Amino acid sequence: MVIVMNPNATGEQIKKIIVRVHKAGLKTHIVEGEFRTIIGIIGDKKAIMALAVEALEGVEKTVPISSDYKLVSSDFQPKPSVIDVDGIKIGGGSLVVMGGPCAVESREQLLEAAKIVKAGGAQFLRGGAYKPRTSPYAFQGLEEEGLTYLAEARAATGLKIVTEVTDVAAVDLVASYADMLQIGARNMQNFHLLRAVGRSGKPVLLKRGLSATIAEWLHAAEYIVNEGNYNVVLCERGIRTYEEYTRNTLDLSAVGALKHLSHLPVIVDPSHGTGKWRLVRPMSMAAVAAGADGLMIEVHPNPAEALSDGPQSLNPDNYLALMQDVQKLAEFLRAEVK
Amino acid sequence: MVIVMNPNATGEQIKKIIVRVHKAGLKTHIVEGEFRTIIGIIGDKKAIMALAVEALEGVEKTVPISSDYKLVSSDFQPKPSVIDVDGIKIGGGSLVVMGGPCAVESREQLLEAAKIVKAGGAQFLRGGAYKPRTSPYAFQGLEEEGLTYLAEARAATGLKIVTEVTDVAAVDLVASYADMLQIGARNMQNFHLLRAVGRSGKPVLLKRGLSATIAEWLHAAEYIVNEGNYNVVLCERGIRTYEEYTRNTLDLSAVGALKHLSHLPVIVDPSHGTGKWRLVRPMSMAAVAAGADGLMIEVHPNPAEALSDGPQSLNPDNYLALMQDVQKLAEFLRAEVK
Amino acid sequence: MVIVMNPNATGEQIKKIIVRVHKAGLKTHIVEGEFRTIIGIIGDKKAIMALAVEALEGVEKTVPISSDYKLVSSDFQPKPSVIDVDGIKIGGGSLVVMGGPCAVESREQLLEAAKIVKAGGAQFLRGGAYKPRTSPYAFQGLEEEGLTYLAEARAATGLKIVTEVTDVAAVDLVASYADMLQIGARNMQNFHLLRAVGRSGKPVLLKRGLSATIAEWLHAAEYIVNEGNYNVVLCERGIRTYEEYTRNTLDLSAVGALKHLSHLPVIVDPSHGTGKWRLVRPMSMAAVAAGADGLMIEVHPNPAEALSDGPQSLNPDNYLALMQDVQKLAEFLRAEVK
Amino acid sequence: MVIVMNPNATGEQIKKIIVRVHKAGLKTHIVEGEFRTIIGIIGDKKAIMALAVEALEGVEKTVPISSDYKLVSSDFQPKPSVIDVDGIKIGGGSLVVMGGPCAVESREQLLEAAKIVKAGGAQFLRGGAYKPRTSPYAFQGLEEEGLTYLAEARAATGLKIVTEVTDVAAVDLVASYADMLQIGARNMQNFHLLRAVGRSGKPVLLKRGLSATIAEWLHAAEYIVNEGNYNVVLCERGIRTYEEYTRNTLDLSAVGALKHLSHLPVIVDPSHGTGKWRLVRPMSMAAVAAGADGLMIEVHPNPAEALSDGPQSLNPDNYLALMQDVQKLAEFLRAEVK
Repeated sequence: MVIVMNPNATGEQIKKIIVRVHKAGLKTHIVEGEFRTIIGIIGDKKAIMALAVEALEGVEKTVPISSDYKLVSSDFQPKPSVIDVDGIKIGGGSLVVMGGPCAVESREQLLEAAKIVKAGGAQFLRGGAYKPRTSPYAFQGLEEEGLTYLAEARAATGLKIVTEVTDVAAVDLVASYADMLQIGARNMQNFHLLRAVGRSGKPVLLKRGLSATIAEWLHAAEYIVNEGNYNVVLCERGIRTYEEYTRNTLDLSAVGALKHLSHLPVIVDPSHGTGKWRLVRPMSMAAVAAGADGLMIEVHPNPAEALSDGPQSLNPDNYLALMQDVQKLAEFLRAEVK
Repeated sequence: MVIVMNPNATGEQIKKIIVRVHKAGLKTHIVEGEFRTIIGIIGDKKAIMALAVEALEGVEKTVPISSDYKLVSSDFQPKPSVIDVDGIKIGGGSLVVMGGPCAVESREQLLEAAKIVKAGGAQFLRGGAYKPRTSPYAFQGLEEEGLTYLAEARAATGLKIVTEVTDVAAVDLVASYADMLQIGARNMQNFHLLRAVGRSGKPVLLKRGLSATIAEWLHAAEYIVNEGNYNVVLCERGIRTYEEYTRNTLDLSAVGALKHLSHLPVIVDPSHGTGKWRLVRPMSMAAVAAGADGLMIEVHPNPAEALSDGPQSLNPDNYLALMQDVQKLAEFLRAEVK
Repeated sequence: MVIVMNPNATGEQIKKIIVRVHKAGLKTHIVEGEFRTIIGIIGDKKAIMALAVEALEGVEKTVPISSDYKLVSSDFQPKPSVIDVDGIKIGGGSLVVMGGPCAVESREQLLEAAKIVKAGGAQFLRGGAYKPRTSPYAFQGLEEEGLTYLAEARAATGLKIVTEVTDVAAVDLVASYADMLQIGARNMQNFHLLRAVGRSGKPVLLKRGLSATIAEWLHAAEYIVNEGNYNVVLCERGIRTYEEYTRNTLDLSAVGALKHLSHLPVIVDPSHGTGKWRLVRPMSMAAVAAGADGLMIEVHPNPAEALSDGPQSLNPDNYLALMQDVQKLAEFLRAEVK
Repeated sequence: MVIVMNPNATGEQIKKIIVRVHKAGLKTHIVEGEFRTIIGIIGDKKAIMALAVEALEGVEKTVPISSDYKLVSSDFQPKPSVIDVDGIKIGGGSLVVMGGPCAVESREQLLEAAKIVKAGGAQFLRGGAYKPRTSPYAFQGLEEEGLTYLAEARAATGLKIVTEVTDVAAVDLVASYADMLQIGARNMQNFHLLRAVGRSGKPVLLKRGLSATIAEWLHAAEYIVNEGNYNVVLCERGIRTYEEYTRNTLDLSAVGALKHLSHLPVIVDPSHGTGKWRLVRPMSMAAVAAGADGLMIEVHPNPAEALSDGPQSLNPDNYLALMQDVQKLAEFLRAEVK
């Protein structure tokens, strides 16, 4: 951390800060600039975080130099992680697809969706049994009934199940049905829930928060890993911007950024990320070309009947055509490109 | 809702949509434009929300006309609500202040802070016993121990207690100590928690989410009120923007907007809203002048020692000076201005 | 446009609006909802825009239904445009690359850069002779001297020249040297300049504004086309968001959105769009896979010596490797993917 | 500036950077952290800006410590500036109001507006003769004809004239009619125009860009002052955010921030800043309480007939009532509050 002093900070004020820093077991480097004094601090990250110098007299601002996540960083573990979900590997060069409806609506809808998803070659079935919805009057999910349909669909198709858990109290129940627990965007900083899925030991799909920075997202992953659960996959799903045409702005540069900053695998959800089925195809292709380890795609047997997020769901034909193309693209990239 | 068709939508596609809308018990108005057909839909809000026409062939987009919150809207109840928290009224023309440290750090710190808060004339003591923190390594709060100190401070000063609850499992416990439950920005869309504080019957202070629209915020309040708990106060605490000088951008226009759209009282938190103690004073004055029903202000006996958010806490002298001025301003506004 | 009335609007107020709309030669559709009356308006876009009903008594808000750009829309011209820049075609299935340094710094630097750009197989040399810079103390460009170096580089390599014009007074001069005029992000709504490049007749590369919506960007293009100059290519270069890791958030979904809304070709600038050379490669691949008609890439013979934007420039080796891969990818997509 | 090296940067790479920094006449401070080496640089700001080390091998990122504007900063001139516009002082404790229509529409409209503005006690008449509009089909202003009406209104009322200039070629003409030149939000980074109004010597009202940071805004002011023209007043007019209820998010915290960072006066435009006439009153009061040196308010004799921005214009009655209250508030603050 760097402490930037006011131009008119007194020697007394500067001394006071240095004393405080040294008391915390940290070292200082003093730099006298043209207008101001600057104090660099080095030492243990936790100790630096516990310093609260910005409220001291004479301080203009503090500037962080390093991020304070650790276990998820590529500094800590340079080699990319490969997460194993009951035999399916995420990361390490293959392309994983998680397909399915936004919400589990009925046994028939889900089983039909699962067959289509399987036919396209995906490895995971997605579908929400617990749906966080902006309005209390919108469809909130079938809850445990939905989980039983997911389990039935797994038995019928062999697909792995990834589904969202929205509450600490439901973690054990959801974990008893699912192969992978999803933390949704609205819960990315629900720290109780992060710790709970961390303790569950189940693989976790951690979606980026609605307006989370990449650093905050990695911190959220650190909460899970800090409980001893290293099986975390990050999922870019768009961020909130001023743009109104798309529901969110899908930030594909996050894929490359995360590959540089962290060892965790990254997948992309172009359905929520754009909110428009027309944009799912180009953004799926783009995500694969950007180096994503997988895709999460909404498919609905009949999008116009969907109780949730129909406008962004692919119909079966568009899904099957897209799956052919993303797989061809992934093969091409593995074979032909460095 | 208005359905905007593609310029090349067929008569068949348009008919299909009309049939679907009528089946749902809703009425249509067809408008033939120069380039496109437009279909207006009227009827029950829930039925309109359940339509998922945007995924139908020929549809370009849908445009919502009315918001779908209801119980919290000024359409539903034009008269501003006054919330009674054990004898203290929020709304209705008085100015309420909630002061205290960001986090309860120790018995001594809290009792000292409470004395200062009381001396300034505030009605509520704030202080977090459960702290949602970006990093798992940051101070997370004293939990129940912190609640007992809050209760002790209430006994010593007569201040009401408002404190954050971050987990459904803790609602009963926190409610047994606090006079008012706070929902923090990161949990504004933790819908389980909203329903739980709704069921608790306790007055609720609902902070705006990090990047929540005013409409989403009112929807979140609707979750609480929909459980039968009308004692909801909204708290503007800044939104996330690209600006880097301030921690958040405090959106004071939300005060006037909410007064127009809803009957719920609105208070403002300039401490989190700006992240800089220097800006707390001007933004407190501004909030009062904008018509806010109250302020939430961070005060720490010694901001430089704060374990959390020191840079935005006022020291006792600045707090006491500000309290004099906001109270004078509130009196002036009541007496002299329309 | 739809006019949404207040719940307590009087019949008198509604009548007044209808009279005004009819006077303007427009038609109304009245819809009586549960809480409010809604008035739909149809007719000529310009006449609707000239109505200013939102300030009338009883009006809650107005909701636009259609965009009001026309000449650039795919409603108006469904077939994608192909822009011919002195024999090089942009749009229509080929991949165009514009490479070069951010700024023209010297004759040697530019000629060396041009050779590398040419060796990679690009069709255009980019390089700014006029640099809009945040600080008045930063390097502002070589101005006309820089233009002469660009012309010399064209003579030496056969590359077409695309360079920015920042001022109406310089349009003729820049047009006398360049093959294509670039409008930079900061000037996307400099309407005098848009009209001037429109009148020049030269092909125009129109960068998206720092925080422009897709609709505003198309409106800006409409200014140029409205002067009779249809040779406009759009360039996505990232938008401003709260994210701090990247310089901007490159919005690749804009490519698909523009292909749906407009007939103009779209290229992508991953260098400015991310601000990090490490992200240029994955985002270039992604842009091509998303369907972009071209790329604009910063290449510098020695990025560490660049007077402007070095951190986002590729060195020659990285550029040459990337060019091979984007070309292979473009061929693959043409051959193998629908 | 601080250079943060990669964890695996070599000693060779670090040495190379140090050599380059020293060659530029700057000093280095080397700090060896747990994971990385960090290099602090001190010396002349321009020399630091000209370094382009981020592109060098082994560099992870650079972190700026000080802003690089100078003449406008409170480091450089701690005493607040008072700008004199032909006898009217802006800054220094008084409250200045600039009222009038968004656009000059006709002689009658402007003269009527001017009388109302004067009756309310404002010092300046505002009104655009040149209107930058998103769409080429929207009303673009009366141009020189509009300027003559402004001059006539000045003669009739004694109000000073502030009006926007949008093009370098028009600076002399507009300056010959106006007392103060306005730079609009869309031109805040039109650097040619900034330099031209700087050279004109006329007082300048510099609006914040649509999504400009406070630092970028001060840099834009630095362009004007750097031409020798210190008569610059800053105008907060809202920033672009994701919120849809308001047209922009009025950032009142910018007032306090600018008062800390700079010596220039600051006024606030709640009309453009919110886009809703209902919010003009509360946000005007808030701006005054936040310490703004003035207000810019849209008033139209008949907002419902306005050719531009009617929904945000006050009608005469609301304007006159507001003027009484902001003046009472300003007096109260001067008399009763520190």
